[in-house]
Amino acid sequence: MGTMKAFVMPEVGRTEIVEKPIPEPGPNDVIVKTTHALICTSDVHTVKGALPVKDGVTLGHEALGVIHAIGSAVTGFTEGQRVAVNAVTPCFECRYCQTGYTSQCGGPLGGYQYTAQRDGNMAEYFLVPHAKANVAPIPEDVSSEAAVYACDMLSTGFMGAEHCYLKLGDTAAVFAQGAVGLSATIGLSLLGASRIFAVESIPNRQELSKAYGATDIIDFTKGDAVEQIIQATDGEGVDAAVEALGFPQTWEACLRVTKAGGRVSNIGYHGENPEPLRVPLDAFGLGMADKAIHSGLCPGGNDRMQRIFALIRTGRFDPTRMTTHTFAFDDVGTGFSMMQNKEDGIIKPLITF
Amino acid sequence: MGTMKAFVMPEVGRTEIVEKPIPEPGPNDVIVKTTHALICTSDVHTVKGALPVKDGVTLGHEALGVIHAIGSAVTGFTEGQRVAVNAVTPCFECRYCQTGYTSQCGGPLGGYQYTAQRDGNMAEYFLVPHAKANVAPIPEDVSSEAAVYACDMLSTGFMGAEHCYLKLGDTAAVFAQGAVGLSATIGLSLLGASRIFAVESIPNRQELSKAYGATDIIDFTKGDAVEQIIQATDGEGVDAAVEALGFPQTWEACLRVTKAGGRVSNIGYHGENPEPLRVPLDAFGLGMADKAIHSGLCPGGNDRMQRIFALIRTGRFDPTRMTTHTFAFDDVGTGFSMMQNKEDGIIKPLITF
Amino acid sequence: MGTMKAFVMPEVGRTEIVEKPIPEPGPNDVIVKTTHALICTSDVHTVKGALPVKDGVTLGHEALGVIHAIGSAVTGFTEGQRVAVNAVTPCFECRYCQTGYTSQCGGPLGGYQYTAQRDGNMAEYFLVPHAKANVAPIPEDVSSEAAVYACDMLSTGFMGAEHCYLKLGDTAAVFAQGAVGLSATIGLSLLGASRIFAVESIPNRQELSKAYGATDIIDFTKGDAVEQIIQATDGEGVDAAVEALGFPQTWEACLRVTKAGGRVSNIGYHGENPEPLRVPLDAFGLGMADKAIHSGLCPGGNDRMQRIFALIRTGRFDPTRMTTHTFAFDDVGTGFSMMQNKEDGIIKPLITF
Amino acid sequence: MGTMKAFVMPEVGRTEIVEKPIPEPGPNDVIVKTTHALICTSDVHTVKGALPVKDGVTLGHEALGVIHAIGSAVTGFTEGQRVAVNAVTPCFECRYCQTGYTSQCGGPLGGYQYTAQRDGNMAEYFLVPHAKANVAPIPEDVSSEAAVYACDMLSTGFMGAEHCYLKLGDTAAVFAQGAVGLSATIGLSLLGASRIFAVESIPNRQELSKAYGATDIIDFTKGDAVEQIIQATDGEGVDAAVEALGFPQTWEACLRVTKAGGRVSNIGYHGENPEPLRVPLDAFGLGMADKAIHSGLCPGGNDRMQRIFALIRTGRFDPTRMTTHTFAFDDVGTGFSMMQNKEDGIIKPLITF
Repeated sequence: MGTMKAFVMPEVGRTEIVEKPIPEPGPNDVIVKTTHALICTSDVHTVKGALPVKDGVTLGHEALGVIHAIGSAVTGFTEGQRVAVNAVTPCFECRYCQTGYTSQCGGPLGGYQYTAQRDGNMAEYFLVPHAKANVAPIPEDVSSEAAVYACDMLSTGFMGAEHCYLKLGDTAAVFAQGAVGLSATIGLSLLGASRIFAVESIPNRQELSKAYGATDIIDFTKGDAVEQIIQATDGEGVDAAVEALGFPQTWEACLRVTKAGGRVSNIGYHGENPEPLRVPLDAFGLGMADKAIHSGLCPGGNDRMQRIFALIRTGRFDPTRMTTHTFAFDDVGTGFSMMQNKEDGIIKPLITF
Repeated sequence: MGTMKAFVMPEVGRTEIVEKPIPEPGPNDVIVKTTHALICTSDVHTVKGALPVKDGVTLGHEALGVIHAIGSAVTGFTEGQRVAVNAVTPCFECRYCQTGYTSQCGGPLGGYQYTAQRDGNMAEYFLVPHAKANVAPIPEDVSSEAAVYACDMLSTGFMGAEHCYLKLGDTAAVFAQGAVGLSATIGLSLLGASRIFAVESIPNRQELSKAYGATDIIDFTKGDAVEQIIQATDGEGVDAAVEALGFPQTWEACLRVTKAGGRVSNIGYHGENPEPLRVPLDAFGLGMADKAIHSGLCPGGNDRMQRIFALIRTGRFDPTRMTTHTFAFDDVGTGFSMMQNKEDGIIKPLITF
Repeated sequence: MGTMKAFVMPEVGRTEIVEKPIPEPGPNDVIVKTTHALICTSDVHTVKGALPVKDGVTLGHEALGVIHAIGSAVTGFTEGQRVAVNAVTPCFECRYCQTGYTSQCGGPLGGYQYTAQRDGNMAEYFLVPHAKANVAPIPEDVSSEAAVYACDMLSTGFMGAEHCYLKLGDTAAVFAQGAVGLSATIGLSLLGASRIFAVESIPNRQELSKAYGATDIIDFTKGDAVEQIIQATDGEGVDAAVEALGFPQTWEACLRVTKAGGRVSNIGYHGENPEPLRVPLDAFGLGMADKAIHSGLCPGGNDRMQRIFALIRTGRFDPTRMTTHTFAFDDVGTGFSMMQNKEDGIIKPLITF
Repeated sequence: MGTMKAFVMPEVGRTEIVEKPIPEPGPNDVIVKTTHALICTSDVHTVKGALPVKDGVTLGHEALGVIHAIGSAVTGFTEGQRVAVNAVTPCFECRYCQTGYTSQCGGPLGGYQYTAQRDGNMAEYFLVPHAKANVAPIPEDVSSEAAVYACDMLSTGFMGAEHCYLKLGDTAAVFAQGAVGLSATIGLSLLGASRIFAVESIPNRQELSKAYGATDIIDFTKGDAVEQIIQATDGEGVDAAVEALGFPQTWEACLRVTKAGGRVSNIGYHGENPEPLRVPLDAFGLGMADKAIHSGLCPGGNDRMQRIFALIRTGRFDPTRMTTHTFAFDDVGTGFSMMQNKEDGIIKPLITF
């Protein structure tokens, strides 16, 4: 049994490392000993009080490591095996899961369980429920530093691209090139977009965006982003737009920048907006412009993870370029506070155990 | 050549019957001599000034008749043939049309040409552009009184149901049971919904709704419609909701009444709302509930018309039950003003020539 | 513990009722006490030696009853609850299941476990694996006599219709109107087909087919079925065809009767054909006619079952009309042999316990 | 008017250059003065007698040039403009076109009009029907040598990849790496395949295949291709397979190499096979393995062309690397005979005018 260190939120607005008992597996669970984790902006939101979570809950949902203990009804895994687990851990058995909405397991956002429904995995050990479906062995030739991006960033960003329902050669725009927006850019490139407009003003993000497949960088500090894109497309706009920031302005920009028949794909988290999102009537063709809006939450499960590993193996993109900083677990608080303040050109800080 | 009578809007807020020249066909056009037409609420909006149209333009976009003249490059039709024409008459050749967004022919709402871009068809004769694709012969065993519903009501309502992307056995709600909402109810029934909640308070519409396949009538005067539906579905909500009224309240209700993973299909016309539509963040899962919103405009073309005729022929629904009133063309103004004031339980007035 | 009676195949070519121990549940299982079951033609094939199964295996995969015992890790059910279980019982957790191919759980046809991988359920008690996903409570107002059709016939037939990927108003043909073909007819009618050609020569099946939505009965004893359908569609053929017999001739007929762009949906079992199926080059447009062929196996899971129950509740079709004969479990052998010989206009025999 | 040189088939088995009148445009046509063309294997088949064509018909369907004359009802183009035209020139107005099956315009393979229904375009001038939809202006920064690959090779190959209906990260195999197979490899890479097995034994094709995105080259002279792929995928097989040769063996290999739930996409031309194609029952799971087979014909229209041009502009692949030989139009016969005999490592010969 024994105890372990865990990075927790004792109350809204504060974080610290505490001792907790190492979790024990139920019949269908697996316990993982953590080796690598990423800090996510969602946790910054959580600590600000965006989600109602239990005081003292462990933070974190992007982590991987080696198998430490295996539940009695779980087969197919071995102790010591290097594995990753998605931020979203659905049961795959409820009616939401059976109809394909696994991120909505049991109800709205129900697949997002770390921190929200159980202790997160920014800790030395963590529990994986429904292990048969959620524990993903990492291929030998995929590094842990790369694999950890499959836990949330790549899966969410790729979903953003998938929800664009691209026809081969469609054009697209992505608003914001943080880690999830950059991942959406990779995804659009993988899914056949011919032209990808990436809206971003920070130089190291612009550069990475180009490396990941953006064909046009739109700097919104140099003029209205929507106008720049409309002009660059001969007044037409794009076939699809990804909202990857969670701001009301970028949401509306997505509706304005898409042509009739266009698709808006939301992956930004809008929990900090006090007001409903707005759908401008002209941009929406008074409800008749054949536009579609899709939303979603990081798809989980080990099949999803294996697909992302297989794509990493092609060498077409290197997710570790998003890791701008690395901290030992004892310094996770420093990384967390840099993430809060967006200091030093930070994109994504890696935590090692 | 000669002249004909046409029902026009000489200026915003006013209508009258005037004499106009009978149109002549260009090489790819056909001229139809009108026999039957329906008055559409959209025209009521147009006369109020919702759409910027030319003063003196002929109103109307739901009409059928017999072929009067055929353009030099058009083959496959004969004079005197009984034909119907959809409210939307796309070119089928531009890039929007080639990618499947025919209602957005050439740009936003561009397939809607009658009244908006050319004289409408509430007149003794009317022109059909791109005739090869837009002139739909009416099968012998489909009456003109039924066929005229394919011009807009059934095509739009069915699109509302198609945009629900139903899985077999899904549940759905339709907000408002005017002619287009009733048509959506028929469409949901045709496409495999297991339970259809129809929100309506007017008795003759409720009755027709049941005949068209609604399983549950929700009277919003007897309690909040969303709550009634949520309760009837054990707290879950429905898989899909159709907005068929064009009110901000019903739009928001659609977002609230759908479960995670649900789809909102807009067919209401929101041109009279002064404000952007609102997407409540809780109902939208903060952007992560896997909800989708689809919008659209009546699909045109003679293939669409033939499909609707074929469905009418099955006898599974009788569209003429929506015809609550009939007027001769000389009295179209009376019908129009009843439509404006929703008098005498009016659903849809038929105009005969 | 105790023992129970089970209908088994002691060796290829022979069946009998024997005593077996009542199964006990593992942590994720449920044990059901059987009340109603249907005999399936697949079992007739199995007894002929079509599938390699263990000698002495219990037959049957279409059964329902009440919950007798519940595994230690299973929640949400109560003893005595009336429940049905699909013929296919996937784990919903493996990579095949996670990508949506639940009938191919773990590999080809792997979701089909009764008889093939474990004892079937033509017995007084039977085990349900992955119970959370596979045990389907039956709504109070759905009779067991109707619900039992959801276990295989309706789910398979509806899949046959779903694999037609109908556009609203498409035309379709179904080859053979046994229980699964009749179910496909219901499915096509539920999914928006405008015209349904049902190929069948037996009078009671023809009659039921019409009641279930067929618009045209094609009697193949009165002329080539393909030619009759081509002629009835002005030389065009249909948009989709369902193979519901498992004969090489009907398979080829499906390819011949579909127009360019058409879809062939196979639900017939071809295990008794000694030769590969043939795709005639002219009917296939030399590989360029935009035709698609889909195949599949009964979709399982309790979500699927609940959807079918919800459709039964609409009253749009009555599956119990397919029950031509009823036997007590002790007489199951009689029913089985009538099924083998297609005696007395048999469509589907119900077994009561 | 005047005359021009055209490469014709005076009778089955023979070709020659003859003088013909320069075509004149009907109201909806455009006449193009040819500058570049590619010789297609389909024409080799045609000359062998595979398609019933008129004696003396002009061959060729992959050509581009500059606009020479414009029909009276055509707008939006100017004389001298550099334009390309797809091998398939649908009307976009008939019911097949309206339902999205534009290559089946008017009936099976009806969009393929050059040579089959009218003179082809291996001539100094050629006619484009339905010019508004079929004439594609070439962007300034796309060379004619690259653009000409959009006329058939890239459009057909990309369709082969599209018909694989890939989920992000799926695996795929392509049988044969001729120009159309190589284009399918590019397409699979553009559409998110993680692993692409390219079956080919000729060294220059293997090399090009790798440059176009193949991750694994399978040399069928060194062992059974299916077995090699099955082994490389841990016994599973691939998610999708493209038949790009038109041989019965590769067709069957596609069925054998795909896992349950897999998709077979046919782009090979099977007109030279005397026998129906065969679907092996084990590979097809006796009709129940959830496999799908898709077929199709090069998608045409200027939207398709513009999408391909936009993808060429990304620089992700260089189609001109498929041009192994170049001939002046007067020597087209030499190129044609090299194509017949697959001499000198030929992949695709370019003809300049």
